[in-house]
Amino acid sequence: MSDALQPEQVSLNQRTLGPDVDLRTAVEAAARAGFRGIAPWREHVTAIGAPAAARLIRDAGLRVSGLCRSGFFGDGARPDDGLDAMTEMEGAIDDAATLDAATVVVTGGGVGADGDIAAARARVEDGLAAVAGRARAAGVRIALEPLHPMVAADRGCISTIDFARGLAERLDPAGDIFGVAVDAYHVWWEPDLEAAVARCGDRIQALHICDWRVPTRDLLLDRGLPGDGVAQPRRLRKFAKNASYDGLVEVETFQRELWALGDPDEIARQAMAAALAYG
Amino acid sequence: MSDALQPEQVSLNQRTLGPDVDLRTAVEAAARAGFRGIAPWREHVTAIGAPAAARLIRDAGLRVSGLCRSGFFGDGARPDDGLDAMTEMEGAIDDAATLDAATVVVTGGGVGADGDIAAARARVEDGLAAVAGRARAAGVRIALEPLHPMVAADRGCISTIDFARGLAERLDPAGDIFGVAVDAYHVWWEPDLEAAVARCGDRIQALHICDWRVPTRDLLLDRGLPGDGVAQPRRLRKFAKNASYDGLVEVETFQRELWALGDPDEIARQAMAAALAYG
Repeated sequence: MSDALQPEQVSLNQRTLGPDVDLRTAVEAAARAGFRGIAPWREHVTAIGAPAAARLIRDAGLRVSGLCRSGFFGDGARPDDGLDAMTEMEGAIDDAATLDAATVVVTGGGVGADGDIAAARARVEDGLAAVAGRARAAGVRIALEPLHPMVAADRGCISTIDFARGLAERLDPAGDIFGVAVDAYHVWWEPDLEAAVARCGDRIQALHICDWRVPTRDLLLDRGLPGDGVAQPRRLRKFAKNASYDGLVEVETFQRELWALGDPDEIARQAMAAALAYG
Repeated sequence: MSDALQPEQVSLNQRTLGPDVDLRTAVEAAARAGFRGIAPWREHVTAIGAPAAARLIRDAGLRVSGLCRSGFFGDGARPDDGLDAMTEMEGAIDDAATLDAATVVVTGGGVGADGDIAAARARVEDGLAAVAGRARAAGVRIALEPLHPMVAADRGCISTIDFARGLAERLDPAGDIFGVAVDAYHVWWEPDLEAAVARCGDRIQALHICDWRVPTRDLLLDRGLPGDGVAQPRRLRKFAKNASYDGLVEVETFQRELWALGDPDEIARQAMAAALAYG
């Protein structure tokens, strides 16, 4: 591709460095590696408070490509800590405003105790409808992120780009608030990928690059950096660009081996190198 | 559901009993557990020869709901033994004729060395086009089975019902040869499931019931029996019936714990009980 990715277009998802790396450490590593943005995880924002987080990020010269992650209305609570979905979502909207985040990333949550995915998806739609006013008042956008169908049951029941876009369109015909986040790991397999991305048009609010390793040995923590697999993140970036996306390109991966390096600077350096070479 | 599944509508996928259970043992266990059909795996058919396999199955009073599994044109070879995809597919068509199988199940194979899923899907279409004449001459139908996107890279790149149906329609507008196999484990998450199944109409050639366990701990060998999870196999059976499917309902699961029982009769009994209760 002639228009190669430049460091000033790239953002780093905080969790790429590991689940327990605090926000200050992550921001410093991202800035040293030349990233232009960061996508903080909300538990690390609330740990120091959103105003302090915003200052930290701004002082490092970074922008917020997205606040991860919210809207667990499918099964009603955030994974890991069980925080109530509505409480969490309202707090995320407020924090996103403070952080001047490009968007809040919503993954929808899993299926829930009734075991009915259609009901879970209806709960996602109802929950998002209930927070639309708060988001509008705060000037915050919300990106619905389709997650890979292999985590539909326990993580996120928004499973395809078309489903995410349809949901956004029903919630918000004008497209001011609700959009879509496209992530190479989650959508690379879609048979109709180029057209599905094109149909999103200017609703694309976030673009995540990463890769699908072959073989993939774990349903959660075996995600590759760009270039490590068959997800073709550069192809996705081209599709998103053709659909008019011009925001930051975020490197997001959760990978045990990478985390095991235990060195945020080294991981950030590898993530940037992978993004420039293959994103 | 008022129209409960009856034993005479149910078939047993051979591999549900374990990967190494020979065809004679599987047929005997299926017959003793009251199944009306079996879906043999081709390596077990060729181990004794298709004519002997056909006799064995017929003598036990069983029908063949499908011959598993063929058409690895995406990456060019059958997993596990690397047998060339075209050789394998031609042999499977011939064996299916001998077995009077309702269909040959084609899963498409993975992405291949070029790492390009679009190219792999094109190879699947080309490969199937090349064997259509042989299938027609032999009076054999071919069911394209969408596999879960988590195995798109290394097992099967036919990832959705709509993609399978579109492929079948392009290869065979009249619908005599190419159709679709729908499997609860692989398609339960599809946002548009009921409509996608309805669009298949009388192209549905096979219906597999099983379940998605929560959590799922392995990408291949952690599949549940009907009732073990959130895939709602009974819902899928209803959708298929509404689309005019009236063939056998096949119980198919690959599960380490079940295999570890080491007793084909016990596994067959559990599979039948699960099918009747939840299928």
